[in-house]
Amino acid sequence: MRSVLVIGTGLMGTSVALALRARDVRVHLRDVDSTALRTAAALGAGTVAAPTEPVDLAVMAVPPPLVGRVLADVQAEGVARHYTDVASVKGEPWEEAEALGCDTARYIGGHPMAGASRSGPLTARADLFEGCAWVLTPTADTGNDTLNSALELVALCGAVPVLMRAAAHDRAVALVSHAPHVVASLVAMRLEDADDRAVSLAGPGLRDLTRIAEADPGLWTAILSANAQVVADLLDDLGEDLRQMVDGLRAIASADEAKGRAGAETVEGMLRRGRAGRTRIPGKHGSGPERFEAVSVLIGDQPGELARLFADVGRAGVNIEDIRIEHATSKLAGLVHLSVATGLTTLLKKALQARGWQHR
Amino acid sequence: MRSVLVIGTGLMGTSVALALRARDVRVHLRDVDSTALRTAAALGAGTVAAPTEPVDLAVMAVPPPLVGRVLADVQAEGVARHYTDVASVKGEPWEEAEALGCDTARYIGGHPMAGASRSGPLTARADLFEGCAWVLTPTADTGNDTLNSALELVALCGAVPVLMRAAAHDRAVALVSHAPHVVASLVAMRLEDADDRAVSLAGPGLRDLTRIAEADPGLWTAILSANAQVVADLLDDLGEDLRQMVDGLRAIASADEAKGRAGAETVEGMLRRGRAGRTRIPGKHGSGPERFEAVSVLIGDQPGELARLFADVGRAGVNIEDIRIEHATSKLAGLVHLSVATGLTTLLKKALQARGWQHR
Repeated sequence: MRSVLVIGTGLMGTSVALALRARDVRVHLRDVDSTALRTAAALGAGTVAAPTEPVDLAVMAVPPPLVGRVLADVQAEGVARHYTDVASVKGEPWEEAEALGCDTARYIGGHPMAGASRSGPLTARADLFEGCAWVLTPTADTGNDTLNSALELVALCGAVPVLMRAAAHDRAVALVSHAPHVVASLVAMRLEDADDRAVSLAGPGLRDLTRIAEADPGLWTAILSANAQVVADLLDDLGEDLRQMVDGLRAIASADEAKGRAGAETVEGMLRRGRAGRTRIPGKHGSGPERFEAVSVLIGDQPGELARLFADVGRAGVNIEDIRIEHATSKLAGLVHLSVATGLTTLLKKALQARGWQHR
Repeated sequence: MRSVLVIGTGLMGTSVALALRARDVRVHLRDVDSTALRTAAALGAGTVAAPTEPVDLAVMAVPPPLVGRVLADVQAEGVARHYTDVASVKGEPWEEAEALGCDTARYIGGHPMAGASRSGPLTARADLFEGCAWVLTPTADTGNDTLNSALELVALCGAVPVLMRAAAHDRAVALVSHAPHVVASLVAMRLEDADDRAVSLAGPGLRDLTRIAEADPGLWTAILSANAQVVADLLDDLGEDLRQMVDGLRAIASADEAKGRAGAETVEGMLRRGRAGRTRIPGKHGSGPERFEAVSVLIGDQPGELARLFADVGRAGVNIEDIRIEHATSKLAGLVHLSVATGLTTLLKKALQARGWQHR
């Protein structure tokens, strides 16, 4: 692959461009937003000059509802030999492309499973896709050269290709991303008009649960819109589960003891199934859920405390799999929860103790 | 305060006992589970011998549905001058205590806003409540000495007392803890029977959202049961929001353009309100939401990488407010997101760059 046109210079497009530039691919940039375009070019993502001959691949990094229209336009120009996109929904854009009479043999849908909570070219980076799954959704129409061209793009970005049908992809992302996003937003929305005193009791659990609700509402409306049917069906199922849970709780709150016991069984059964579902979420490196144990260490709030802690952890030869910092609400201190592979906790605790850390 | 009886030697009770022992209070321990009791005593949390004269304060660290019954029993024994509990629900236990004819002048409800995802005396620690809010729910009945005794307990545990009405407390914890817990479990439950391929696309957002679903289903059924009415009402409201969201999405999915625009407005409006609600969650040290910026650094997966990173951060004199580690799905590398106070990012980035770190 020698030349690529990146259409749309937000976070995703600019990151693709930077990754390709790092592998010496010639990159042309295009965006209707001239500020974003100039910013991406200034970051070294490519040239704003239009290609003088068809490029090997055009990558559309535009919101899902625009993919079909943009594809029709650029194919009419004949700007590239092959076409792909990085939008987070795959079914509807493909249908639109087909309805608009696009050459679907030369277009393959793509979706790198990477992102950030902020958007725009300034948040882009060449390593955004390193090690990430990058879904490609070929159809019976897709030409071999087009598929290979997309596979080369994925490899150049350091990602791992995953071939799926568009419909299966859309159901999967609705399940693991779109519906959870809506739920996080709805839980956070309930805090909008809540008492100050009530909100002040919120802890790290709620903070983690609602983190994704910080994302750009405009962009997420576009994402949800392009997968609206699938997400709505899934949220309906979730609403049904919610009703069952409410029925269980109301049975518990009733005066009837037998009903109460049945209600408690419903509630506990659903919490158990939730815990079982949770264990299926893959851990690091796509290696499936692993079991780690946490060692919690009390630290002060001065610069250098974490450095001192991690230096001591490093000396113990123990690798930290995950970190969570829990700030106390009023003292200048916090707890650092260090996840380490099961079996290394004793070693780590001894090493920390020897160096004067308070842990458990 | 010279002597305390702790009833229930799980995580909370044993942690209270350890905190009091560290301040030289004489602590008696009691538990129907003799293994838990012996474990707590072996940890230095107090003596298993019964007090020979009434103690200053009895602390009931039992699940919410047991508080009323236990209080009636120990008051009948006359084991203490004052009584409190640490259960996470306050209204129903008080009503039960009153119905059982307890001396409510000598009992004050309490709820330290601390916990851990695991339970049992082995997870206890003396500093569990350091800097945490500790809600106390006095009523018109509560004696002054009883209130002061509870305030002394809170102070000895290093926590910050927050006085609230029981009903307001129960609504607040339903909002910031109980209802979110149910929602996290329901989202996780949807993963139980999902395709492997679909679950493999899950990222850090879903992992964070469902973290609390890992907690003990039995304990959480007891917590939800004691606050069942309030949680059910709140989940009904949430269900109503969910229906509105689904209606908005179905309008978008419909062929009708005007309906679609209205649906998109509904969806975007709710996402906006979610983002607004999210900003109300307090940041560290109870100081209200602060604005931090993230600097993301690429690290390898060898022991010592984090130590090296934090040593370099410490040398820059920058204090890390929060850390999130994002593991790539297939490469032996990850991203560390460091949150630092707005304004310090440039300094930190320069320092990291000078030491050869890849960041953005």
